[in-house]
Amino acid sequence: MKVVALAGGVGGARLADGLDQVLPEGALTVVVNTGDDFEHWGLHISPDLDTIMYTLAGLAPEQRGWGIADDTFETLAAVERFGGQSWFRLGDKDLATHLLRTKALRLKRSLTDVTSRLCEGLGVRRPILPMSDERRPTMIHTKDERTLAFQHWLVKERGKTPLSHITFLGAPIPSKETLDALREAELVIVCPSNPYVSIDPILALNQMRETLAETPCVAVSPIVAGRAVKGPLASMISDLTGNPPSAGTVAAHYAGFLNGFVVQKGDHEGIQLPTHQTDIVMRSREDRAQLARNVLDFAATLR
Amino acid sequence: MKVVALAGGVGGARLADGLDQVLPEGALTVVVNTGDDFEHWGLHISPDLDTIMYTLAGLAPEQRGWGIADDTFETLAAVERFGGQSWFRLGDKDLATHLLRTKALRLKRSLTDVTSRLCEGLGVRRPILPMSDERRPTMIHTKDERTLAFQHWLVKERGKTPLSHITFLGAPIPSKETLDALREAELVIVCPSNPYVSIDPILALNQMRETLAETPCVAVSPIVAGRAVKGPLASMISDLTGNPPSAGTVAAHYAGFLNGFVVQKGDHEGIQLPTHQTDIVMRSREDRAQLARNVLDFAATLR
Repeated sequence: MKVVALAGGVGGARLADGLDQVLPEGALTVVVNTGDDFEHWGLHISPDLDTIMYTLAGLAPEQRGWGIADDTFETLAAVERFGGQSWFRLGDKDLATHLLRTKALRLKRSLTDVTSRLCEGLGVRRPILPMSDERRPTMIHTKDERTLAFQHWLVKERGKTPLSHITFLGAPIPSKETLDALREAELVIVCPSNPYVSIDPILALNQMRETLAETPCVAVSPIVAGRAVKGPLASMISDLTGNPPSAGTVAAHYAGFLNGFVVQKGDHEGIQLPTHQTDIVMRSREDRAQLARNVLDFAATLR
Repeated sequence: MKVVALAGGVGGARLADGLDQVLPEGALTVVVNTGDDFEHWGLHISPDLDTIMYTLAGLAPEQRGWGIADDTFETLAAVERFGGQSWFRLGDKDLATHLLRTKALRLKRSLTDVTSRLCEGLGVRRPILPMSDERRPTMIHTKDERTLAFQHWLVKERGKTPLSHITFLGAPIPSKETLDALREAELVIVCPSNPYVSIDPILALNQMRETLAETPCVAVSPIVAGRAVKGPLASMISDLTGNPPSAGTVAAHYAGFLNGFVVQKGDHEGIQLPTHQTDIVMRSREDRAQLARNVLDFAATLR
């Protein structure tokens, strides 16, 4: 059974880790949002790819949603002393990833190829694919009428500036590897990532909706009892839809291509899709594996 | 009195530090070889500029001829784990310099401007000028018929591969700031740097010899009792000239533009120039200041 997981940052990384634990070799491909990618210190940063890669490599911190556990910040401190930008915290070990990626991209290697080599270096066996080899920046348009690259909004402004809408620059297609993986997939799992800024950038790629229409899709809610497990999703839902955040708002947002939805017990109200209620908060690595099993079992009942 | 010091790496940095200690504000400009500059990890590295900048900032290690004292090497270790290049040891604090420089150069800032801002960030008050804003790579042609960028020969091959000759790529002119400093100078001091790979790249710039001809020049020998104080100069002299290394070989190499030569006591034999014998080995910061005073006093007797 071939499974593709669509994922953004931390929530996506945790479920991907659960799927990694329970699926046999060759059965899992993770397709990752690269709309957050940006240039910082002259380096190409791919925050979501790195979060997922470090998580599957067992290097991600327990709590913090970015970087490498027990990293140091000597370069950052030195950049800060020079008066350089320090709002995006790049750790010393983490920097190696960005340096090697940037250099390889400048030599015209594809982001897919670069990511594959980085994963190999970290002993990650599952394919982690950027959604596209082309740039596709997610832009946040704020209520105070500014347009910010996503990480500037999320990290520099702490995701607190109210937003009016979101756009994706350019109109790229998915990478060949992503399209191939989706065409071979018997199940697509939309991880509990932010629908607007982690999953929509993937869904909005050219050819993506048509490709997904051929495969059963289930999603896991990123909202639990009206709150986002991580990140600024709750206020984003209010800003963008005018509705209070709920699993139902997310289900409605995904309407049209989902075949089933996995929500926290008690969060099923007003959802039109086949819904599975379970405990979806992943506190431990075992929680991740258990949720992965539940999602796979639920998906099997939908066929 | 305006003084310009021409300098390469460690020996140059130490005498520059001595001159920094003894000359009044506004009296010293250091013009630095950039023939060693190269790209590594996708970053623009300027080894000699950095050695001099870190030395004048009080950040250079006591013994080691490169980088920042007490630096850590977390990024390097991570790059190494990825199978990346680790022969050139970039420290974590040091990396900030290369990242900021590379980014600014990509934004079309001049190396002179970038260096000035880095110096400002480190509290270095004396102007440190790259010899040119254009690239001018020093290439080492080895006896086994390979052509190596200088740092590849010096660091990767530990300066041990016998060489046949040296060339400088391109034909750049000195930066405007360097030419201005030289035209205003009442004295040029050639620091005890390697004549072939630290000073020749400066001297061989277009317009340089003509500009220097107008100003008194004294040099300090980088050879003491037939041995190089630091680096591969001794074997380089043998390889390039067929003669045993001596202060006299260096004096002969500089023939034509020098007005005086400062050598270690006892090293004066066979030198045709006005020569001052003193202790030129700089073991302490006080040694550096004392040698600077001796050189300035000697130069004053030549007028």
